[in-house]
Amino acid sequence: MATVDTKTGQSVDRTVLDSMLRRRMFYTPSFEIYGGVSGLYDYGPPGCALLANMTDLWRKHFVLEEDMLELDCTMLTPEEVFKTSGHVEKFADWMCKDPKTGEIFRADHLVEEVLEARLKGDKEARGQKVEVDEEKEAKKKRKAKASKAVKLDDALVQEYEEVLAQIDNYGGPELEQLIAKYDIRNPTTEGNLLPPVAFNLMFQTSIGPSSNMPGYLRPETAQGQFLNFQKLLEFNQQGMPFASASIGKSFRNEISPRAGLLRVREFLMAEIEHFVDPEGGKKHPRFADVKDVELSLLDRNVQLSGSTDTVQMTVGKAVETGLVDNETLGYFLVRIQSFLLKLGIDQSKLRFRQHMANEMAHYATDCWDAELKTSYGWIECVGCADRSAYDLTVHKNKTGAPLVVRETRPEPLRIEEWQVDIDKKKFGPRFKKDSKSVEAAVEALSQELREKLSLDLDKNGKIEVEVEGIATPTIELDKDLIKIEKRTRVENIREYTPNVIEPSFGIGRILYSMIEHVYWSREGDEARGVLSFPPAIAPTKVLLVPLSTHASFKPLTQDLTSKLRRLGISTRVDDSSASIGKRYARNDELGTPFGITVDFQSVKDSSITLRDRDSTKQVRASEDEILQALKSIVDGDETWEDVRKRLPEFTGQEVE
Amino acid sequence: MATVDTKTGQSVDRTVLDSMLRRRMFYTPSFEIYGGVSGLYDYGPPGCALLANMTDLWRKHFVLEEDMLELDCTMLTPEEVFKTSGHVEKFADWMCKDPKTGEIFRADHLVEEVLEARLKGDKEARGQKVEVDEEKEAKKKRKAKASKAVKLDDALVQEYEEVLAQIDNYGGPELEQLIAKYDIRNPTTEGNLLPPVAFNLMFQTSIGPSSNMPGYLRPETAQGQFLNFQKLLEFNQQGMPFASASIGKSFRNEISPRAGLLRVREFLMAEIEHFVDPEGGKKHPRFADVKDVELSLLDRNVQLSGSTDTVQMTVGKAVETGLVDNETLGYFLVRIQSFLLKLGIDQSKLRFRQHMANEMAHYATDCWDAELKTSYGWIECVGCADRSAYDLTVHKNKTGAPLVVRETRPEPLRIEEWQVDIDKKKFGPRFKKDSKSVEAAVEALSQELREKLSLDLDKNGKIEVEVEGIATPTIELDKDLIKIEKRTRVENIREYTPNVIEPSFGIGRILYSMIEHVYWSREGDEARGVLSFPPAIAPTKVLLVPLSTHASFKPLTQDLTSKLRRLGISTRVDDSSASIGKRYARNDELGTPFGITVDFQSVKDSSITLRDRDSTKQVRASEDEILQALKSIVDGDETWEDVRKRLPEFTGQEVE
Repeated sequence: MATVDTKTGQSVDRTVLDSMLRRRMFYTPSFEIYGGVSGLYDYGPPGCALLANMTDLWRKHFVLEEDMLELDCTMLTPEEVFKTSGHVEKFADWMCKDPKTGEIFRADHLVEEVLEARLKGDKEARGQKVEVDEEKEAKKKRKAKASKAVKLDDALVQEYEEVLAQIDNYGGPELEQLIAKYDIRNPTTEGNLLPPVAFNLMFQTSIGPSSNMPGYLRPETAQGQFLNFQKLLEFNQQGMPFASASIGKSFRNEISPRAGLLRVREFLMAEIEHFVDPEGGKKHPRFADVKDVELSLLDRNVQLSGSTDTVQMTVGKAVETGLVDNETLGYFLVRIQSFLLKLGIDQSKLRFRQHMANEMAHYATDCWDAELKTSYGWIECVGCADRSAYDLTVHKNKTGAPLVVRETRPEPLRIEEWQVDIDKKKFGPRFKKDSKSVEAAVEALSQELREKLSLDLDKNGKIEVEVEGIATPTIELDKDLIKIEKRTRVENIREYTPNVIEPSFGIGRILYSMIEHVYWSREGDEARGVLSFPPAIAPTKVLLVPLSTHASFKPLTQDLTSKLRRLGISTRVDDSSASIGKRYARNDELGTPFGITVDFQSVKDSSITLRDRDSTKQVRASEDEILQALKSIVDGDETWEDVRKRLPEFTGQEVE
Repeated sequence: MATVDTKTGQSVDRTVLDSMLRRRMFYTPSFEIYGGVSGLYDYGPPGCALLANMTDLWRKHFVLEEDMLELDCTMLTPEEVFKTSGHVEKFADWMCKDPKTGEIFRADHLVEEVLEARLKGDKEARGQKVEVDEEKEAKKKRKAKASKAVKLDDALVQEYEEVLAQIDNYGGPELEQLIAKYDIRNPTTEGNLLPPVAFNLMFQTSIGPSSNMPGYLRPETAQGQFLNFQKLLEFNQQGMPFASASIGKSFRNEISPRAGLLRVREFLMAEIEHFVDPEGGKKHPRFADVKDVELSLLDRNVQLSGSTDTVQMTVGKAVETGLVDNETLGYFLVRIQSFLLKLGIDQSKLRFRQHMANEMAHYATDCWDAELKTSYGWIECVGCADRSAYDLTVHKNKTGAPLVVRETRPEPLRIEEWQVDIDKKKFGPRFKKDSKSVEAAVEALSQELREKLSLDLDKNGKIEVEVEGIATPTIELDKDLIKIEKRTRVENIREYTPNVIEPSFGIGRILYSMIEHVYWSREGDEARGVLSFPPAIAPTKVLLVPLSTHASFKPLTQDLTSKLRRLGISTRVDDSSASIGKRYARNDELGTPFGITVDFQSVKDSSITLRDRDSTKQVRASEDEILQALKSIVDGDETWEDVRKRLPEFTGQEVE
C-alpha cells in the first residue's frame, strides 16, 4: 500500500497512519454506533482545530490579502437555480444495478475494475511479472477477486488498454456498449447487470410545508455567489475586477464513496469567483509580483502523448507562451501554490495538471488542477478554471436580472453604421396588423444588407423586404416610408458580462493529503508516529507537562496556561501520571510542535524548558524568554532553529 | 413598530434599519433574482465578517478557555438516529390547509391571530382605546384584516384571553377543538380549513443511490456529540467532567418563516454538551470565580403569576436558594452573559427566563433561556438546559454502545444483599425448554422477595415462583435446586451515565439582536445610521481614507495597508472621489470603528489622524504611534478614551 515517501524517506504505511488518526480522533466515521454511513465522517478535536486553522489561514491568504468579498449563502437551493446552471440535467454519474442482489455499481469504476483484472490474468498466463499499480489498487474499495490466469488475444489486450486510457470520457450509452461487448458482470456473483442509468449526485429535499418546492443541497458554493453578482458589484462601488469568496459545506450523493476523507458525501469547500473584464487579455494588476515563481506543470499535450512528465516553468513564461491562458489564471495558480506550501504541503508532491479539452465543460477556456501526491495516487485538491461568462449569462437569461457591468467609456465609442428611419405615421395605415412585423424585419436587417438596400432605394426609389409570418411575405417599401443613411453613433456606456476565474478548494482533501505529507515515524521506532504540522496550522501549539503529579507544580502550570492564553497560543496541559516520554509521544501524534516542561528547578527559579517536536531538542531559559520565543515562532517572526541558537541547550530530563 | 431604545435613547425604526442592513449587504434574501425563498438569507461581506468574528470569539471564550473538545459532525443524518432521539415522532408543528386556496397556516399562529383580531374588534365596539401590542404586531407576517368592531360577551372575552395566555401549550387535537369551537377560518377568504395535521420540521432526503436509506438534515448539532461520547471520553483520557462543542449549520423547515433573521430555515448554531456526574450536586470547579456575578432572572413562579418582573440576583444566591438547579447550570449562565456582553449586547436588554414546567422536555431538570429585547419583543437567543441522562441513555439502549463512565471507586463499595444460587445441572433436565424462563424469573426476584423466600425455603424446604409465558406458570423449587443467602458483594468500579448541561446558541438571532442594540443615528440626522460594534467584533477595524484622489497619497495608503495587515487589523481603503464626510458616513453604517486619514501633511511628515466612529473625535500623531494605539485598542489593552487622552486632538479636515 506504500507508495509515497514521508519527509524522512520512509514510505507511508496507510494502515498504521489511519489507525493513528482515528485513535487520536482527527476524524471518525459518523454514526459509528449505528453502523455508520459510508462517505460521512466527523472531525474530532484535533481535526476540527486543523480545519479551523486552515480556513482561518485561507481567509487571511485570500479574502483579506486580496480584498475579496466573502459571502455565506444557504446550502438549501431551489430546483430552478440548478436547472439553469445545468446541474439537474448533467450533474450525474452512471450506475448499474444487479437485479438479483440489489447491488449498485458505478459503471465506469466497474468496467475499469473488470478489465484490469483480465489484463492481470493475461499477464499471469503469459508468465509475465505482474506489476501491481499500487495507486489504483489503493483506490479500490473491493479487492478484485483473484484474477484468473487466462491468456487474451493480443488485439483484445490492446483494446482493453485503449478503453482504460479514456475511461473518464465515456457517457452512459458508451458504457452500456462496453459492458455488453466485453460481457462485464457483477465481479462477485457473475450475475448480469441492468443497463447503466444516470444517477444525479445532488441530495434532493422539499422546502416548505406544501411539498411543491423541490430543492437540493448545493454541490458547490459557486451558484450563490453568481446570483449575488449585482449586489456585490454595487457593494464594491462598481469597481472591477473583484472577487467573491465562500467557505462552506457542500454535498454530493456519491454512488459508492471510498478512499476515506478523499471522496465523501458532505465536505467543506472554499471557493473564489474572480470577476474580470473579458477584454484586454484578463490581465492581473499584481501579476508582476509573481511572474518569476516556478510551478510544476503537466501540459495537456504531454498527457495526450501518454506521458505524465511535468515541466518546471515560471508562471510568467507559462502565460507568455500561452500554456496558461491568461495572467489572472496564472496569478491564482501561484497564490494556490503559496497557500498549500504554508500548510506544510511538500512541494515535490504538488503539480498543476491541465484539463484535457474533453475533460472541461464546453464553456471553459482553460482549467488547471492542483494535484497532491498521496498513497492513493495524485489527488485533485484545488481546481482553477476559467469559466468564461457562462454562469452569469445563463442566470441573466433565465431571470432577466442585469448580471452585467455597465461602465462609462473613457473615450466615447464612435460607430459608423447604416441606420434605418421609418415613418411610423404612415406605417400603421399602410400595413395595419402586419406593421409590427414589418418594422421588426426592417430593424433586423444586417449592416451589409442595409448598405445594399440604400443603393437600391437611391436607384429605384423603393426596395423589397422579406417579412416572416405574414400573408404576403415580400413587402415593398418606397422612399416615403423608409430612409437608410450612414451615420455616426456615439456610445458612452459599455455593457459587458464579466468572465469568471474560479479557484475551488476541497478543504478535506487538502487536509488529508497534508497529513500524509507531514507524517513520519521516529527512527528505530515505527510505532512512534509524528505529524510535523507547521506551528500556524497545528491543532495545539504547546503541550505543558509538569515533571510529575507533585502538588508544587500546579500553581506554575496554571499561571503558564493563563499567560499562554493571553498570548493567543493554544495550549493543553497533560498532568497525568504517565512518563514525560509517553506524554510527548502522544503529542507527537497530535502534531503539537512544542512542549514546555515544568520541573523542580522551575519551582525554584521560574526557568522552564522548551522542546521541539521534530528534533526533540530542548532549550532552557527564564519563563519570559521562553514565552517570548514561542510567540515569535508562532507569529512566524523566528524559526525553532533561530531560537535554538540563541537560548542555552538543555539535555536533562526527557525520559523516553 | 418602534419599541426598543437605542443607546442614544432613540427608538429603533426597523424599516430604516432593515433597509440600511440590506443596502450595506449585511444580509440579503437568498435567490432574490429567482423570486427568493422565505426563511433563507445570505450573509454579505460585512455580515459574513461579523459571523466569523462572533464564532471566533465564541471559540476562544468557550472552547479554548474552558478546554472543550470541539467536533465537526455531518449535517446529513440517517433516520434511525432521529427515531431514537424522538425527533421523527415529535419535532413537528401543526398546520391547517385551506382546501380551496391551497394556503397553509401554522395552526397556533392562526388561532392567535384570529382571536386577537376579535378582541381588538370588541374593544373598538366598546369604545375602548385599542393598545397595539407592537411586539406581537411586529411578529406577524400578514397584517390582520381591519378588525370588525363587534362586541363580544364578557364571558367569551375571558375565554379568548385564557386561550391566548397558553397558546404555546396546545397540541393538534386541542387546536382542532379551538378552531371548531370558535369557528376560526382563513382570515382572508373566510373559507373553512381542514383539521390540523402534524408537520415534521426536519428536511428529509435520501442517502446513497438505492433510495433505501432515508435521512434528514439535522435540526440541531447535539446528536452528533452524543453519539461520539465514548470516543470523546477516551480522548479526554477518561477525565470527567468535560464538555464537547460544535459550531455548524442546522435546518428547520418552518411552516411560515417570518421576522427576518429570527426565524429561518437554515441557521448557524453553536452548542455545548457538558457531561457531568449526576451525583454530588453537579458542582462546577470554577463556580467560586463567578458566584458574585449578578444576573437578571425571570423565575417560572413569577411567570405563573402572570408577571414578567425580573429579579437581579447573584448566581451564588440563585443556586443556594434552588432557583437555579445546580452550580454547573449557574456557571454557564454567567459565561453566556459574559459572552453576550463582549459582543456588545446591552445588559439592560438581556434577561434569563426560566422555562415553565410544561415548556420543558419531560426529562429536563431545569432550563433557562437568555432572551434579548428587540423590536420584535424578547427573543430567545441562547438556551441553557439540564437534559439529565436522557440522550445518552436512549442511544445506549438502542445501539448497545456503552455510553457510560466507568471509574474505579476510591473506596470499594460493600453491598449486603440476598443472592440466589441455582443448580444449573439439575435445572435443565428438570424444566427442559422452560429452564431459561425459570432462571430469568428467579434472577429477577427483588431483594424483599428474596428475603421472604429464603425464610420459606428454610421453613418448608421449597418455594413457589411465578414464571410468565410458560404452560404452568407456578413453579415449585426445592432446596436441591436453589439456595438463597445474604452475602456481601464488593464493587470496585462505578458505572454511570453522565448528565448533560446544554448551552445552545442561535448565532444568527444573537447577531441580529446585537445589531439592534448597537444601532443609533447621529443627532439631527436620522438618515445617518451608526453601528457601534465593539472593535473585536466589527467587520472591518479601520477605514483608510486619503484626503483626495491625488496621486501622492497612493504610496502612503499602500504602505499603511500592508502594515495594518501585518498587525492583523482588517482594513479597507476608500480612495473614491466622494467627500471624506460621505466616506465616513458609509463606514459608520458598516460599523467600522476607526478611520485613518492621510492628507498633505502626512506626505510631508508621516503624521496621520485617527478618527473614532462613535464620537467622531480625532487625534493626530506619527504613523507609528497611531498604529500602536490601534493595535492596543483592537487587542483590548486600551480603550479609545485612553488613546484620546494621551495623543494630541485634531480638529481639522473632517467635512461632513
